[in-house]
Amino acid sequence: MARNENGYLVRVLVYPRAEVLDPQGRAIEDALGRIGFDGVERVRAGKSFEVSLRALSRAEASEAIDRMCRQLLANPIVEDCSVEWLSE
Amino acid sequence: MARNENGYLVRVLVYPRAEVLDPQGRAIEDALGRIGFDGVERVRAGKSFEVSLRALSRAEASEAIDRMCRQLLANPIVEDCSVEWLSE
Repeated sequence: MARNENGYLVRVLVYPRAEVLDPQGRAIEDALGRIGFDGVERVRAGKSFEVSLRALSRAEASEAIDRMCRQLLANPIVEDCSVEWLSE
Repeated sequence: MARNENGYLVRVLVYPRAEVLDPQGRAIEDALGRIGFDGVERVRAGKSFEVSLRALSRAEASEAIDRMCRQLLANPIVEDCSVEWLSE
């Protein structure tokens, strides 16, 4: 924390792109139906990452999160990242 | 939709319980450090499910979601479910 940094807590949600099949979501839909949950219409299955990071500004943190999505957290060919700020 | 049902959209987040190790989160933290993300302090890795369901009331939908968590979406021994309402 030598530089004048702030702490940020960000949630990154990673789901299959809309035009891509979501086999895990379909499997859960089917399984819920089989065990008696009649009201379920659709399930989308994805990943959630809560990232605590330090950065000089929210803009710098946002830029880092976007790069993390592209480089590690998601496969941009078949997945979409969305970002939610849980602090600041 | 014979009964007087409403549609609900719910997000269920499933994370390792606080007292349980989160090896995927640790692996991502380490990997982010190795590829140059110095500001990352902590990563928690979990699952996110977006469930569209029909129910007579929000209370009925909420009760169904709680049962889905216990019966299918999470392993209650090592994971915690949290619920966010994306509609209604």
